[in-house]
Amino acid sequence: MRCPSVTPHEGGALALLDAVLSAEGYTVHRPVFSAPGMPDVENLYARLGTEGPVLVIAGHTDVVPVGDEAAWTRDPFAGSVENGILHGRGACDMKGGLAAMMAASLRFRRENPDSSGSIAFLITGDEEGPAVNGTVKLLDWAHQRGERFDHCLLGEPTNPASMSDMIKIGRRGSLTGKLTVNGKQGHVGYPDLADNPIRGMVRLLAALEATPLDQGTRHFDPSNLEVTTLDVGNPASNVVPAQARAVFNIRFNDVWTPETLAAEIERRLRDAAGNSIRYELVVQPTNAVAFMTEPGPFVNLVADAVEAETGKRPALSTTGGTSDARFIKNYCPVVEYGVVGQTMHQVDECVAVADLVTLERITRRLLGTYFAAQHKA
Amino acid sequence: MRCPSVTPHEGGALALLDAVLSAEGYTVHRPVFSAPGMPDVENLYARLGTEGPVLVIAGHTDVVPVGDEAAWTRDPFAGSVENGILHGRGACDMKGGLAAMMAASLRFRRENPDSSGSIAFLITGDEEGPAVNGTVKLLDWAHQRGERFDHCLLGEPTNPASMSDMIKIGRRGSLTGKLTVNGKQGHVGYPDLADNPIRGMVRLLAALEATPLDQGTRHFDPSNLEVTTLDVGNPASNVVPAQARAVFNIRFNDVWTPETLAAEIERRLRDAAGNSIRYELVVQPTNAVAFMTEPGPFVNLVADAVEAETGKRPALSTTGGTSDARFIKNYCPVVEYGVVGQTMHQVDECVAVADLVTLERITRRLLGTYFAAQHKA
Ligand SMILES: [Zn+2]
Ligand SMILES: [Zn+2]
Repeated sequence: MRCPSVTPHEGGALALLDAVLSAEGYTVHRPVFSAPGMPDVENLYARLGTEGPVLVIAGHTDVVPVGDEAAWTRDPFAGSVENGILHGRGACDMKGGLAAMMAASLRFRRENPDSSGSIAFLITGDEEGPAVNGTVKLLDWAHQRGERFDHCLLGEPTNPASMSDMIKIGRRGSLTGKLTVNGKQGHVGYPDLADNPIRGMVRLLAALEATPLDQGTRHFDPSNLEVTTLDVGNPASNVVPAQARAVFNIRFNDVWTPETLAAEIERRLRDAAGNSIRYELVVQPTNAVAFMTEPGPFVNLVADAVEAETGKRPALSTTGGTSDARFIKNYCPVVEYGVVGQTMHQVDECVAVADLVTLERITRRLLGTYFAAQHKA
Repeated sequence: MRCPSVTPHEGGALALLDAVLSAEGYTVHRPVFSAPGMPDVENLYARLGTEGPVLVIAGHTDVVPVGDEAAWTRDPFAGSVENGILHGRGACDMKGGLAAMMAASLRFRRENPDSSGSIAFLITGDEEGPAVNGTVKLLDWAHQRGERFDHCLLGEPTNPASMSDMIKIGRRGSLTGKLTVNGKQGHVGYPDLADNPIRGMVRLLAALEATPLDQGTRHFDPSNLEVTTLDVGNPASNVVPAQARAVFNIRFNDVWTPETLAAEIERRLRDAAGNSIRYELVVQPTNAVAFMTEPGPFVNLVADAVEAETGKRPALSTTGGTSDARFIKNYCPVVEYGVVGQTMHQVDECVAVADLVTLERITRRLLGTYFAAQHKA
């Protein structure tokens, strides 16, 4: 918490993990990845054990900026604890949870020195940033080295209000489009000599929202489109403007791929535009596809551990934004579980110490059942 | 043309008219009007004759700014004539037309020194500006002094392409409204926790445009609504914005008053909003109501004069923007006729000298028939 690891700065956070894990016998790597026009980013991969199965605990040490520092009631990088609450940037997203999971792993191996299998840590410093020099490259780097993973627990804060609320077994995809409607500028008194692009834009956006994209699927909410901005910038109320611009974002479920979804949007626009509305659609490339880890033995082990420690079985959810799970799912089944995320990215981010203790217990219990199950198998 | 009389500056233009009219026997007044927070504006009222009927020739000497001066191919205030074209700011709107009408008046009285009735000039320096210290106050000032007008010819450029095209017997009204839809900011991944105001705005604007306001009337086009701007200004494509703002302007015909029209807009918004869209509508106060001078003897005299000099009868129109005729119509019937307005308010504003000659002839002919008809009556 005291390491100011605002993306892309390592801030001492990975060095700390390196020291702790190395001291416990982990083999630790610190690959640094680069891309043109972007700052280099440090990452960490550590493994204890040489056999399978390999359970990966994934996460990030980078944090979002402090924001309005004057609005914080505590030093965002002091890591102070008051009345059972740990305060500071990254408390819930996700240094607190990462520390709890790491503590659980170390304690589990001390208590079970002969446990089969391997525990690995896949930690990036580029989750809150562009996510280009982070998990996606770290996974590829590990794969090139011959590392194979059986399952992954990603420690993002998944709980809306209490530790028994929710584990995430998938995430919706995200697609962003920019829509421009071109008209013809003119005077409002002579509408026949002008072509108002706002009229066309309203029709196109109404067409995009006229019917639901889908009804949702067994584990996914319906796909949802939000127009995030719509701008003309014409200061003169007696002038018809020449152009209107909109941006929309779709969070989509497993009914769609980015390609089929873009085609559906294009079809709706084309039908609504006919020959009378001149528009341009630019769909941004996306790596956020919808995915899900099918409910089954691994998901059940996680849910069992949560239920055993909290007394309540968590919901299996695919809601919320995107996460690095969208990259990990290409290598092994991944489930997300962590602390309560209410204050993430906000001023006065914090987490209850009791929740960190619960997360440590849940993780330790999961490690026990996971490796015992494998041993039996 | 050489007087730089950009609103609110007199620029020597009214002083010139004063000198010319005074020399011809007109009684000339130069009232200056004021309003809080606005520059003082000079105006001119001149009359020759003491009896009725009183025919008023109205106009303005102020001009819109030069705009992109570098784009002009001639000095905008040189008043140069090349190949039969008079160039400069105000050439068509409306110093050229005003000069032609004044020349016609002087020549008519020299040729008909015993003509009955009176000719008056009602000239403002605040037509292109806020129009607060101009014609509206000048009319009131004259009325307080006991001046009564029988008919008015307003010399705005009314012709789209040639001098026989169009006289304007009325104007549509203008109403501007500002519409704000308030939602709730949030993350696109959690649409249930947000309320996207763009969705509401699209529905409200679609409702405003869903059905025509009217079908037009005998002398008026259908009323027309244009949304002139629509702005959100949200740079983050993963954030649902909190507010969307639009401005619309309606050019309306004699089906409506500003009050009945505002009520209709409010009704459409209320019906479309239901309980789910939170909006605010602010309708700007307007003095631009729809009005018309009924076709009849005076309109016919103007149309006859145009036909006699051009060989073609002009259309009776109520199209285009607003003009000071909206104020004059409260005092006497008003008809607008002037030169071709194609270049008004533009770079390289100009007028054909031949059209000015035609306008002088038409005005002189009108004065003759107008006062002769009154004489006979
Ligand atoms: Zn995170
Ligand atoms: Zn004008």
